[in-house]
Amino acid sequence: MAKKNIDSVEEVKNKQVILREYVTGRPKESDFYITTSTIKLQVPSGSNAVLVKNLFLSVDPVMQFQMREMKHQNLAEYQYYTPGSPINGFGVAKVVDSGDPNFSVGDLVWGTTGWEEYSLIQQPQKLFKIQHTDVPLSFYTGILGMAGITAYADVYEVCTPKKGDRIFVTAASGAVGQLVGQYCKLMGCYVVGSAGSQEKVDLLKNKLGFDDAFNYKQEPDLDAAMKRYFPEGIDICYEQVGGKMLDAVLRNMKVHGCITLCGMISQYNIAEPETLKNVMQIVLRRLTIKGFTHRDHHHLYPKLLDTVLPYIREKKVVYVEDIVEGLEDGPAALVGLFSGRNFGKQVLAVAHE
Amino acid sequence: MAKKNIDSVEEVKNKQVILREYVTGRPKESDFYITTSTIKLQVPSGSNAVLVKNLFLSVDPVMQFQMREMKHQNLAEYQYYTPGSPINGFGVAKVVDSGDPNFSVGDLVWGTTGWEEYSLIQQPQKLFKIQHTDVPLSFYTGILGMAGITAYADVYEVCTPKKGDRIFVTAASGAVGQLVGQYCKLMGCYVVGSAGSQEKVDLLKNKLGFDDAFNYKQEPDLDAAMKRYFPEGIDICYEQVGGKMLDAVLRNMKVHGCITLCGMISQYNIAEPETLKNVMQIVLRRLTIKGFTHRDHHHLYPKLLDTVLPYIREKKVVYVEDIVEGLEDGPAALVGLFSGRNFGKQVLAVAHE
Repeated sequence: MAKKNIDSVEEVKNKQVILREYVTGRPKESDFYITTSTIKLQVPSGSNAVLVKNLFLSVDPVMQFQMREMKHQNLAEYQYYTPGSPINGFGVAKVVDSGDPNFSVGDLVWGTTGWEEYSLIQQPQKLFKIQHTDVPLSFYTGILGMAGITAYADVYEVCTPKKGDRIFVTAASGAVGQLVGQYCKLMGCYVVGSAGSQEKVDLLKNKLGFDDAFNYKQEPDLDAAMKRYFPEGIDICYEQVGGKMLDAVLRNMKVHGCITLCGMISQYNIAEPETLKNVMQIVLRRLTIKGFTHRDHHHLYPKLLDTVLPYIREKKVVYVEDIVEGLEDGPAALVGLFSGRNFGKQVLAVAHE
Repeated sequence: MAKKNIDSVEEVKNKQVILREYVTGRPKESDFYITTSTIKLQVPSGSNAVLVKNLFLSVDPVMQFQMREMKHQNLAEYQYYTPGSPINGFGVAKVVDSGDPNFSVGDLVWGTTGWEEYSLIQQPQKLFKIQHTDVPLSFYTGILGMAGITAYADVYEVCTPKKGDRIFVTAASGAVGQLVGQYCKLMGCYVVGSAGSQEKVDLLKNKLGFDDAFNYKQEPDLDAAMKRYFPEGIDICYEQVGGKMLDAVLRNMKVHGCITLCGMISQYNIAEPETLKNVMQIVLRRLTIKGFTHRDHHHLYPKLLDTVLPYIREKKVVYVEDIVEGLEDGPAALVGLFSGRNFGKQVLAVAHE
């Protein structure tokens, strides 16, 4: 297929969400601005990049971490943002032009892309090709995307419960928590979730099938709250909050219990992290604590699709999304994560086809 | 074997170390007193207890924990001390009279016993019978006792290194640390230890075969010290200190590293535990942290003897003991643990036969 000379290719407008400056405290909408640049809808000659039109962007807590300046950071695998440039994250996109023989125009993909209308992706080998389109495309930002890999690995690989186990899920109505709780229910566990509003608590109990749930903002004493729901202790805690929540969890684990940590939303947005007091409980209760992120578990994706696509089709698992329309509302959606404004998985729709 | 009527049995003096009051801060010698009661050297008729003469007592950091009042403690397996009564701990003893058919007069045993000359042990089924007496008997308070099970489980079960791994051992000249470091060296690892004096550092490097060692009291910046010894990071840290040490460790682990916690000497002796700051590193570096104590690993004891007795006999492993003579010096030896006064495994000799 002969390519047009790039000089003759039409330029289109490309709206972008730009990071203004490195963020030091809690991110604000004004840390970002929207600009419109132009882009030619063709991969440069000789490049094996892929040019995509972005459809849905995943709005993730970890992005706050990427807004910080990390001069001395020795964890190179994290992509930090550059002031003046568009931010990036996971998203669903359609291939507009391809220099990689594995991708064709019209292919649907998910993976790391820019917060903009069109992105030139330099490492297309990291993209996942979307094969199943009988489920909502936006699901590839969540239940079938990065959060989905996180939740699937959490329950089926990192710390696998057995029937009857008493499970506590924090941030339980979020992108990962709602899945972790439902997967544990499917395995025959007793599952309690914590969330930050009565509406979210109702969602957990009435729509997502949790056995019980509580609003942590209404609990002056988290330790007492946990003792109420887990008088005999917690077997497994899927923890994403950190700080005071993790301290209370440590005091309420059963001996030999397991805590998985795949994020700490309470800890991303403060300059000085909250400290942990009850560390000695790890020894006394002989706990295992496992930190992990999705990036170690991408090889599970085929198994995830085999397990989770039927769950979706048979309505055994529900996935609650909070879809905001348009890049202009991206900064508000992102900032809203840290006050818990989102109701379910936060998605930003850029275009629908 | 017909027993004498207990009324006709001779009473002997029984010196004891008594806890005066619950300890709230750092223990002091004056928290204890020595008293002399009397005891008849015969198990009461019909009892299946065992009466022992104590030979060597193990002086352990965890005892500080047992001195505290633990009203609301739901970890029943820990034995808390009672003011006015003798304290207890692990020790080596000789059976003087037995109501249990598994034990005979003259048997040597190790297990939980009192800090006194003679003890009536109500649960003899928890005692280990000593079969190998070609090694020093005191070793059954350490390398072949509770600390030995801890160290053996730590390296061979909880987090097993592979050849070439870079290992950091804290409290490295202590009862557990010196063994952990030597076992890792036998497995072909690079091993660095931290200790609290130049004399201990010399011991680690010159006698125990550590690759390197440092005096943490001479390091104003523990993070910088660890970066000096582990420029590429730590694969496994065998940690027994907690507090600032654990915080620095968390910042210097390799991705996917493992930290085992079998105690936290810095955390036993302060009313308000030092808090942990770098908890987020558990997620970022995808670390595994395993709390454990010897009590989950007693089934390993036959394997331990098979492995470690030859190591001792062939001098492949050295065990450094600090033996104090006489119950009167018990409180000072115990209190000395928390200022690092001991040089190697702290043992209290009560009698030599």
